[in-house]
Amino acid sequence: MIGPEEVLRAQARLGERVHRTPLLRSSLLDAWLGHRFVFKAENLQKIGAFKARGGLNTLLSLEERGELPHRVVAHSSGNHAQAAAWACAGLEIPCTVFMPEGASAIKRLATEAYGARVELAGTRQEAEARSAAMEREGAFLLHPYDLDEVVAGQGTACLEALQDGAAPTAVFTPCGGGGLLSGSVLATRAVAPGCAIFGVEPVYANDAARSYRAGEIFRWDTAPRTLADGVQTLSLSERTFHYVRQSDGVLEVEESEIVYWTQWLTHLLKVTLEPTSVLGMAGAFRWLQGRDPGETVLVILSGGNLSAATRERVWSRDVLETPPRPGLEIPPWP
Amino acid sequence: MIGPEEVLRAQARLGERVHRTPLLRSSLLDAWLGHRFVFKAENLQKIGAFKARGGLNTLLSLEERGELPHRVVAHSSGNHAQAAAWACAGLEIPCTVFMPEGASAIKRLATEAYGARVELAGTRQEAEARSAAMEREGAFLLHPYDLDEVVAGQGTACLEALQDGAAPTAVFTPCGGGGLLSGSVLATRAVAPGCAIFGVEPVYANDAARSYRAGEIFRWDTAPRTLADGVQTLSLSERTFHYVRQSDGVLEVEESEIVYWTQWLTHLLKVTLEPTSVLGMAGAFRWLQGRDPGETVLVILSGGNLSAATRERVWSRDVLETPPRPGLEIPPWP
Repeated sequence: MIGPEEVLRAQARLGERVHRTPLLRSSLLDAWLGHRFVFKAENLQKIGAFKARGGLNTLLSLEERGELPHRVVAHSSGNHAQAAAWACAGLEIPCTVFMPEGASAIKRLATEAYGARVELAGTRQEAEARSAAMEREGAFLLHPYDLDEVVAGQGTACLEALQDGAAPTAVFTPCGGGGLLSGSVLATRAVAPGCAIFGVEPVYANDAARSYRAGEIFRWDTAPRTLADGVQTLSLSERTFHYVRQSDGVLEVEESEIVYWTQWLTHLLKVTLEPTSVLGMAGAFRWLQGRDPGETVLVILSGGNLSAATRERVWSRDVLETPPRPGLEIPPWP
Repeated sequence: MIGPEEVLRAQARLGERVHRTPLLRSSLLDAWLGHRFVFKAENLQKIGAFKARGGLNTLLSLEERGELPHRVVAHSSGNHAQAAAWACAGLEIPCTVFMPEGASAIKRLATEAYGARVELAGTRQEAEARSAAMEREGAFLLHPYDLDEVVAGQGTACLEALQDGAAPTAVFTPCGGGGLLSGSVLATRAVAPGCAIFGVEPVYANDAARSYRAGEIFRWDTAPRTLADGVQTLSLSERTFHYVRQSDGVLEVEESEIVYWTQWLTHLLKVTLEPTSVLGMAGAFRWLQGRDPGETVLVILSGGNLSAATRERVWSRDVLETPPRPGLEIPPWP
């Protein structure tokens, strides 16, 4: 297991190869809710998601140690596919990405545009099996979260926000495989020791919340279904569970809350957000219920890669006529 | 008429009351088209549009001269309504905004949230008449473009981009009433004298292009219809025509191009864009046809206030399966 110094080292290593993404604010949202909200806009990161950080940090670490692989393989239907392709392109390493059928055309297109070879596999399980086979033949498997360097790299987003003056009393991040939450726990505990930190999950994909409560890893048999398609992982790994247990908890939110905050944050912050991105806000809103005004929360917006189908589902009903206010019952969503 | 020094003064006056918005880039777009595109993200400005600059600069100039009005009136169905309300709130001046019926609920809500009184008027003409009546009773009419301080304030967006290293060979801005283009002409001619600068209009709302060609102001009888609802003004004013004539021209683009670039820039830059915002990109893409690779263009993205109805129209058909490439015939749009 690693310590917070690895997050600082990752930051130095990544340097200007990744964006120092801006902190976004909304004076209307602050006024309506009586708290100060600071958003770390990782949707404006290279490839449109924080995943660029962990992927590149891993390859740069290997390069430092003189162990740069001759071929990289990854499996993903989403942002990690683009991150792997982009990181490999920068270091001129051939990259193969196995994507399950049904991955959106636009994500395939972007992954190929960064120079990776995309191979379609029938299911998520098949994509994993075929990557494992390539790993046995000598390729480096760039895992989406179960690597120290990935955890350290993802933690640099939260670290930057704390360095840039976010000054939160609590931090909220989405939690899928746990890489982002793990790195953020390391950064927060080191830089802002009095600050709380929470992961947030859809209630239909609450394996991390169950694992946190039970003290042991809960695992789905098949990928859970939720609009937040970035957190449909089957389970945490032993590695990420180690850090997730050090957080202040994993909050669970409904699909209706995910839709509501996707529409409202898209509108107020003027950025493109995939539903997974707003989990932090949905969790923060729940956590703030009944608290006195004046908290400062840091919400990590994880990404902005929205397929046409997801966009259509999110905007199939307009909830912008119901502005946020303390105690609001979020309107149900069919 | 004013000189470029007024734009510099506006920048000093506005100081940190407005955001120094980021310059956004897309490495994919650059690679696909063989040019360097730099986007000034005024959709991330206060109130979600560059209009905050001109509105606030006007009121701060009045304050400097000891002429701060007791009441401000404005007429707008869009971003200027929010800009007027927001600027007045900062200086604690009561503000009344006349909006035509049909203005979207979400824009009304935001204007009221900034503290303005919103009055619904039947038509755009009626909204103007009722504002004029209040002006005669002593209120200050904050015109959306026909004021020196508005022109100077709008020019600060382009000025910042040039100061921040955009280094363009050509600048492209939307053109409605001409305030943004006028201020950008002043900034560009002063700071980047060898650089071209163009306004861009929908072909269905091409009054500025006609005026530029004819050498005299062309005026619509009724507001032209276009998806780019930020440029539905009836005509330039004598003031803005003076600066627009000093630009390198006003380009015209089809509705299909507006839809195409709204979808693609939303996707590539991960920001919320109203269709008016992408006029600059649509014009730049036309201008680049047949040119050798290696140009650098600065595109001013004007705003990100998107109503649910406009969002639905833009995304009613997905064009993201046709990536940009030189010489691409933009797919038609019904």
